[in-house]
Amino acid sequence: MNYIQEYNRYRNLVEEWIKNRVKVPDLPEKSLFEAMRYSLTAGGKRLRPVLSLAVCDMLGGDMEGVMPFACAIELIHTYSLIHDDLPCMDNDDFRRGKPTNHKVFGEAKAILAGDALLNTACELMLDAVLDDRDEPLNKAAAARIIMEAAGASGMVAGQVIDLESEDAPVSLDVLCRMHRLKTGALIRASILSSARLCRADERTWEALDRYGQHIGMAFQIKDDLLDLEGDAAVTGKSTGSDEKNQKSTFVTVLGAKRAKELLEETVQEAVKALDNLQNAGFLARTAAYIAEREG
Amino acid sequence: MNYIQEYNRYRNLVEEWIKNRVKVPDLPEKSLFEAMRYSLTAGGKRLRPVLSLAVCDMLGGDMEGVMPFACAIELIHTYSLIHDDLPCMDNDDFRRGKPTNHKVFGEAKAILAGDALLNTACELMLDAVLDDRDEPLNKAAAARIIMEAAGASGMVAGQVIDLESEDAPVSLDVLCRMHRLKTGALIRASILSSARLCRADERTWEALDRYGQHIGMAFQIKDDLLDLEGDAAVTGKSTGSDEKNQKSTFVTVLGAKRAKELLEETVQEAVKALDNLQNAGFLARTAAYIAEREG
Repeated sequence: MNYIQEYNRYRNLVEEWIKNRVKVPDLPEKSLFEAMRYSLTAGGKRLRPVLSLAVCDMLGGDMEGVMPFACAIELIHTYSLIHDDLPCMDNDDFRRGKPTNHKVFGEAKAILAGDALLNTACELMLDAVLDDRDEPLNKAAAARIIMEAAGASGMVAGQVIDLESEDAPVSLDVLCRMHRLKTGALIRASILSSARLCRADERTWEALDRYGQHIGMAFQIKDDLLDLEGDAAVTGKSTGSDEKNQKSTFVTVLGAKRAKELLEETVQEAVKALDNLQNAGFLARTAAYIAEREG
Repeated sequence: MNYIQEYNRYRNLVEEWIKNRVKVPDLPEKSLFEAMRYSLTAGGKRLRPVLSLAVCDMLGGDMEGVMPFACAIELIHTYSLIHDDLPCMDNDDFRRGKPTNHKVFGEAKAILAGDALLNTACELMLDAVLDDRDEPLNKAAAARIIMEAAGASGMVAGQVIDLESEDAPVSLDVLCRMHRLKTGALIRASILSSARLCRADERTWEALDRYGQHIGMAFQIKDDLLDLEGDAAVTGKSTGSDEKNQKSTFVTVLGAKRAKELLEETVQEAVKALDNLQNAGFLARTAAYIAEREG
């Protein structure tokens, strides 16, 4: 099985699990579930849950036990995109090549669909805790890692820095903090929650932590480069929006040339972090994939 | 100690706990915490956590163990108000006598502050689960009750029905479903999560469940009556907004006279549910308080 086949195997498992969990019931509030499902099944890369499953495979863990947490992260990621695309935030009309949630369902329902996705993510994880009569604390700890990365100490804090950095240039330090929180925290959590569920030893945990931090940063540098140079038909979202919104990005702060060098260095650091781990081929290849992707 | 003193004793415990948990750190994302704290300390009645603590007292439970869950519910309630007040939702400028969150911090930050409050509520509950080495499953079950009541099977679903019922009259059935989900579910959860934490027996649980359902309904009927007849200086929010938004309410569907009768009947049902419980005086008095309140 080559890399893409392996990636798609994980991805298909995720698609299947999500499709079976978030259904549209025939109730007066039906349209809430339609809005949730619309964005959840809009064809994302599923990078975060794929990382969770790959870490689990690498550590010989129980894939079924990791799945609810992997998919909870994808629900959280999806909610953050819906809210981020709103007119009062980034005001984006397209996402993954399709009209954004609020363009289809209206702003009010888009906000509520986002709220419900975050809430559902917690419910899925609590169900997994309650289903595990042997070691619920291990599952609760994984949920805690994910929720901490998603909230006011993580992703949401990053979005607030992002908001405040519009129209005003920011330092490289603040830019790095913003991305570490906004994008990096949840990517790192997708790796560390799985490491926790699979009872990684301390040495493995620390290596995966370094790896996770570097691929999170690489992901964002690449995103900034794609906004500048990407093909809207492939990225599925409007390009040039950072410039339009006068956003500070790695490209505006460092210039495209230095940003590309930094991307290369960051990917190398990520791969180096895996040096002493067994069966880390997929993760190493994923670091490169993040830098090469075109969407 | 009379009723009001007892209510305020619970309420002060809640204020204290919240004040000590949600602080404003000196970080680039500081304004996120300011926005969260603004709405959290805007002087609500704290009805939901007061109910949790009162149930705990009645059952002789451990107040400290209940507190994180009681306050998590208040965080969830607060986030729902912030999102509900947004221009694309109810478009309210005042809440509890103060400008609404988006009027002070802007729409984008208001949405993020709401997201962060929901997220923080989950973190507080997960911390409580992880801190309890003896019976984490009991705590996880209480968190599950709360999250189920808050999300797509509860409060958020109710808000979607509410949205869709604007501009179009709805039946009494749909109106009841909407309120059972939108307001009732979280009030009921504040009672049942505490009952679960305090290991209520089945008979007590069922009685509290009936009580919770009735006071939830009473709360909403009274809300609708206050929107019609209340004093904006006391309720702290604009009155007449239901009529402005052409919303279906108990008042528009039943008329004010029948709505008042239904309120009385509902309070009586709530009190009757407590018939065979010991030490239920405070809860019975609270049912009456809900119908009498002026804000």
